[in-house]
Amino acid sequence: MQIAVVGATGAVGQEMCSILAQRRVPADCLRLLASARSAGTRVPYAGTDLTVRELTKDALAGVDFALFSAGAETTRAFAKPAAANGTVVIDNSSAFRMDSDVPLVIPEVNPQDAHQHHGLIANPNCSTIIMAVAVWPMHRVNPVRRIIVSTYQAVSGAGAAAMQELRDQTRRVLDGQPVEPKVLPHQSAFNVFSHDSPIDESGYNTEERKMVNETHKMFHDNTIRITATCVRVPVLRAHSESINLTFDQPIRAQKVRDILEAAPGVRVVDDRAGNCFPMSIDAAGQDEVLVGRIRQDRSDPSGCSIALFVCGDQLRKGAALNAIQILNLLTS
Amino acid sequence: MQIAVVGATGAVGQEMCSILAQRRVPADCLRLLASARSAGTRVPYAGTDLTVRELTKDALAGVDFALFSAGAETTRAFAKPAAANGTVVIDNSSAFRMDSDVPLVIPEVNPQDAHQHHGLIANPNCSTIIMAVAVWPMHRVNPVRRIIVSTYQAVSGAGAAAMQELRDQTRRVLDGQPVEPKVLPHQSAFNVFSHDSPIDESGYNTEERKMVNETHKMFHDNTIRITATCVRVPVLRAHSESINLTFDQPIRAQKVRDILEAAPGVRVVDDRAGNCFPMSIDAAGQDEVLVGRIRQDRSDPSGCSIALFVCGDQLRKGAALNAIQILNLLTS
Repeated sequence: MQIAVVGATGAVGQEMCSILAQRRVPADCLRLLASARSAGTRVPYAGTDLTVRELTKDALAGVDFALFSAGAETTRAFAKPAAANGTVVIDNSSAFRMDSDVPLVIPEVNPQDAHQHHGLIANPNCSTIIMAVAVWPMHRVNPVRRIIVSTYQAVSGAGAAAMQELRDQTRRVLDGQPVEPKVLPHQSAFNVFSHDSPIDESGYNTEERKMVNETHKMFHDNTIRITATCVRVPVLRAHSESINLTFDQPIRAQKVRDILEAAPGVRVVDDRAGNCFPMSIDAAGQDEVLVGRIRQDRSDPSGCSIALFVCGDQLRKGAALNAIQILNLLTS
Repeated sequence: MQIAVVGATGAVGQEMCSILAQRRVPADCLRLLASARSAGTRVPYAGTDLTVRELTKDALAGVDFALFSAGAETTRAFAKPAAANGTVVIDNSSAFRMDSDVPLVIPEVNPQDAHQHHGLIANPNCSTIIMAVAVWPMHRVNPVRRIIVSTYQAVSGAGAAAMQELRDQTRRVLDGQPVEPKVLPHQSAFNVFSHDSPIDESGYNTEERKMVNETHKMFHDNTIRITATCVRVPVLRAHSESINLTFDQPIRAQKVRDILEAAPGVRVVDDRAGNCFPMSIDAAGQDEVLVGRIRQDRSDPSGCSIALFVCGDQLRKGAALNAIQILNLLTS
């Protein structure tokens, strides 16, 4: 079996390589591809070195599964030709996520959809994955009618360069030097700002619309009313989200806790006495979405609403890990 | 007129001195008080130096207005005796905020309450002030029925030591060194965590309950249904808040924008095309609460809900400035 990682030198591509190595995928099954600029880079892999090759149509020939994480442009140029050549593409970009003939899959949520593919499977947006892994097990028991979510998003969502920019800027601010944002549009060091994706006439940005539309698609339910406020915080690689849920029927916080404790991909971290709840540094590098602050939403007297707080690693479950779990679904 | 700043060496006390100097309060009207540990400290003030004296009952003798910001314990020990001696105490702690005979005041919201005092006036919690300044002008036009708020709180709320801890920890993380939280219970550098105040059996922490109870008291309306999720972020001194509001009657985003543009203490920062909205570094050092991301909440088909995002300086409007505005109310 030949697996290609497209965008192998990016933050998500590197995380994919790390997970594939942990899962003992042999180096000779792996083809690392990237832009011409990165071609020739040597990447350490499972005790050896792999050379990154330039992404071309030929470079994908004979590949069984291609994990794309090189942006929507690259996907648009290379994914469909590769699929036509027999490669199954699992794509981390937003290029085809909402296409009706492309399954959008979180293995804990809608694994059955993965098998309906025509050569292309989309990996959802990171914020959406982290929310959906936590919300889905409750939705199965008591349908969710409304979601109000506010995010605390790590800069890793804007790639490795944004992570380095946060480190560099932070040092400059500590040293009293001026900063000049280049990767992200605003200073990320010691700052909080609205997500830097374009805003439409409704006032929502693209990241927020993804959380709505992708959740609808994966849950197979367009009637769930969802509003999101997406915000960047000076954190390197884990997203946090404050979520208020309204269910069809009254539900108790203890019931939610029981459901989540039995749910795949979730770890309940909810120690009220110790004031210990999900936090970014604990979620970083972890596979599970951490869920805590589970409580009855006191602003809804019907008893149908629950508030909670989640953290998940943007690069792992938010991107690389989910893509590899889809690969596993198709090969196991 | 004699004004005392109690807790003069703390983060809020220092901000009070800075604002009093800007307002040209003469140095000989000012008495700086703090714990025995800080007594003797020289504090620069309007081109001169003032010596901090130890807070004692005698040190408050003859003081007309005392701005307390030294924690609830100090307030409990010194505020009522001072008030009994004729000093009007404006207290930044939570000690007496919910007492029925102590007005809790934001000058933009309920200035009339300030005049009902019996020697003690309470300054609200910082997160509550920043939310209330933005919400009140809308509430006057179309009563708010439900508030769902998630905060992004600066470490300054835990004092100057927490601000220094964030700087020190951040440098250690950048240098690859281990960190050991001392002021805040968790690592604040590059991390997001649930507010470190105690949690009750309902699952809400003290900070969140303050946002509910203090808003009810100042708005003179206990029927507003409020839920808060309070979270700390690695920011030095401005709090941000993602707020979803449900009004009694349908309301349009443009109407909200018009109301807020005419509201005191508010600056609308809502440039969708330029992706320019309120952010922590722009709010820091400013008097106004910045409000943006004003949009119809798409999860409420009734048209009664609005989403927005606010930022305000925790040390200024969230604490020191509001206290001095109360002082101005009483003396003008």
